[in-house]
This record gives sequence, structure tokens and C-alpha cells, in this order.
Amino acid sequence: MSDYPSVILEQAVNQMASLPGVGRRTALRLVLHLLRQPEADVEAFSNAFTRLKKEVVYCRECHNISDTEICPICGSVRRDHATICVVENVQDVMSIENTGQYNGVYHVLGGVISPMEGVGPKDIEIDSLIERVAKGNVDEIILALPTTMEGDTTNFYLYRRLQNAGLEVKISQIARGVAVGNQLEYTDEITLGRSIVNRIEFKG
Amino acid sequence: MSDYPSVILEQAVNQMASLPGVGRRTALRLVLHLLRQPEADVEAFSNAFTRLKKEVVYCRECHNISDTEICPICGSVRRDHATICVVENVQDVMSIENTGQYNGVYHVLGGVISPMEGVGPKDIEIDSLIERVAKGNVDEIILALPTTMEGDTTNFYLYRRLQNAGLEVKISQIARGVAVGNQLEYTDEITLGRSIVNRIEFKG
Repeated sequence: MSDYPSVILEQAVNQMASLPGVGRRTALRLVLHLLRQPEADVEAFSNAFTRLKKEVVYCRECHNISDTEICPICGSVRRDHATICVVENVQDVMSIENTGQYNGVYHVLGGVISPMEGVGPKDIEIDSLIERVAKGNVDEIILALPTTMEGDTTNFYLYRRLQNAGLEVKISQIARGVAVGNQLEYTDEITLGRSIVNRIEFKG
Repeated sequence: MSDYPSVILEQAVNQMASLPGVGRRTALRLVLHLLRQPEADVEAFSNAFTRLKKEVVYCRECHNISDTEICPICGSVRRDHATICVVENVQDVMSIENTGQYNGVYHVLGGVISPMEGVGPKDIEIDSLIERVAKGNVDEIILALPTTMEGDTTNFYLYRRLQNAGLEVKISQIARGVAVGNQLEYTDEITLGRSIVNRIEFKG
């Protein structure tokens, strides 16, 4: 598909297709769907994104997306502010919150160190994490970064930074192993190998 | 995923997820992608859709999407205006144009008759087609509607309307049969059956 019957249509398709994972054919289908909606709905659709970009802020403490200077989690007196879970992004906070298993606070790095993609320690929220810990009142840092080479690199870098700053804080990382419900035969070798090496005592 | 850290974020995700085929997880990923873009880019993204809704028009002749009252195809003196190809939607015009095999003009119905979905003859551009033919100077109507029950119903309805209006015009429909490059064993029975019944002379 190349020749659009309208330049305005083509521009809308170009914008829609700029979203990651959206091809031109899908973009055309989505744009024609929007065109069939009432004008007020299209306005609401468009305004949602400009409003997001203009009004949303990042929490001064944990750098999660927020409507307020301090996010509801950092502002809550019912959360354990001595435990900080370090995550890559906003989705990770939502995923951990949905487990209902965590009552501490977060620190959203906004990425992981990746020399391949040109992301260095200064490009993500590492300094602000060290500052938070340096203020005191932090007992434990839980590293919950992705189990990738970049995640491991970032974990190690954070560990060294905290050590070098002479900050006495417990550093843990989320357990890695065979996922609940998974068959051993379908688990990759590295995960299975690590889950044997890092076995824990069975408490029957 | 349910608890969004920001109401504005949630509203943007709701809007993105209102697009057909976009789930909430994908919507969140797309919205966070937008949030990482410069403000000017997000503005351009949003404006493209409101501009489309406000400024795009439908060609007075063929009802295709257009930037002008008469679309470039209907306005072209190099097209054969005596041949009208009847299609369901804008994408169909683009698909046929891309074949480079058609030099007539179009009539975009904007749907097909579908009692199941409550789409009747008055809901699509049928009257305007009859009027176009009634004006004279039309030699042939090519029915290029989808090969579905709804498409067949619409074909038959159009045929009857043109007959009842006493309009002498050749009515043809696009060939249906085994797709080029397709193995017979993978072709569905109805298509294969029809392609035998409607066989054409082999011109070696």
C-alpha cells in the first residue's frame, strides 16, 4: 500500500506507524477506525497524550510516573520506607504491586546500563539512589532488575557504588529459578543450572 | 495490571486501548513510548488525528477519503469515467490502485449490507451510486465487494436496484477462484468448487 487518497490521511498513518510494533497496514486500519468515531472522541483520544506529556511528573523520591511531586507509594505512611526495591521501569512497579507481596518503596532507574545501546550509569537514576541511601534510614536494597546481561551489569555496578560510598545496607536480589508451574524439561539450561547451585533448604 | 501510578497515565492507556486489537498491556507500552518522545513529537502525533477528523472530506462523486471536494481519481481526465468499480472501503481502493490494472473510477460504499450488524441499504452509499448511473455516461459497473455472504447480498441488492431503475449498464464482478501461487490442496472447497464450475477457456 503506498498511494494514499489524502495527504492528511497519510500523515495520520505515518504518526500511528511511528509507534513501536505498529506496521503501516495496521496503522491505516487504526486511523480509519478513529475517523469513524465522533469528533469529541477523537479529541479525547488526542488530548490524552498531549496532556500526559505536559502534566505527568516523575516522583521526586522514586522517579516513578506520578500525578503529584511525591507518588502515592512514597507518600504512604503504611509502606516500609526502609526497604527500597530497585526496578528498571514503570511496568515493573505495577507488576510487583500486583503480586501484593511487597510493602516497601521503589526506585525506578528508567533503564539499565547497556554499553551496546550507549546507556551509561549517568543516563539512569543511579546517583539519586545513592543519595537516597546516603540520607540514612534505609535497611535493605532489593535488586529486581531483568535477568539479562545488562541487568546483571547494573546490579554489580550498584553493588560496587554502594560499597565504595561506605553505605552499610543489606543488598539482596530477587530469587531466580524455575518459574512456578514450569516443567523442568522446558526450563533453559542456565536457569536450571543456577537453580541447582542456588538451592535453598526445604522446609517441609 | 490494574493499579496505575498516575490517573493521567491511566487515561492515556484507556484511550490507546480503545483502538481495535490493542490490549491494555500493549497500550501501556505504546503510551510509555510516547512519553519518552520530545513534546513536539507528541503534539504532532496527537494533532494528526484531530486534523484528520476535522479536515478530511469524502469525495462528492465516489465517497473515497479525499483532501478536496472531488478526489484526484474522480478529477483525473486520464481515467475512464464510464467504468465504476464498487468497493466496500478506502483500503480496497488502495489495493486495487496498487495492482496498476485498473483505469476506471470507484464508488466506495462505506460498508456492505449486513442484517446481523444492523447495516441496511440506507446506511451505505447505494442511493448515490444509483444516482451516478442514472445521470448516464456509465457503461459498466464492476462489483468488487468481499467474497462473503454480506458481499454477495450487497451484490445482489445492487443488481436488483439497477434493474428496477431500468438502467441499462453492464454489471460484472471480479473473478473468484484459486489465488495465484496457491496449491489446490490448500484451497477451500467452496472456492475450488466454484473455480471448476466457472472455468474459462484456456488460451494457450
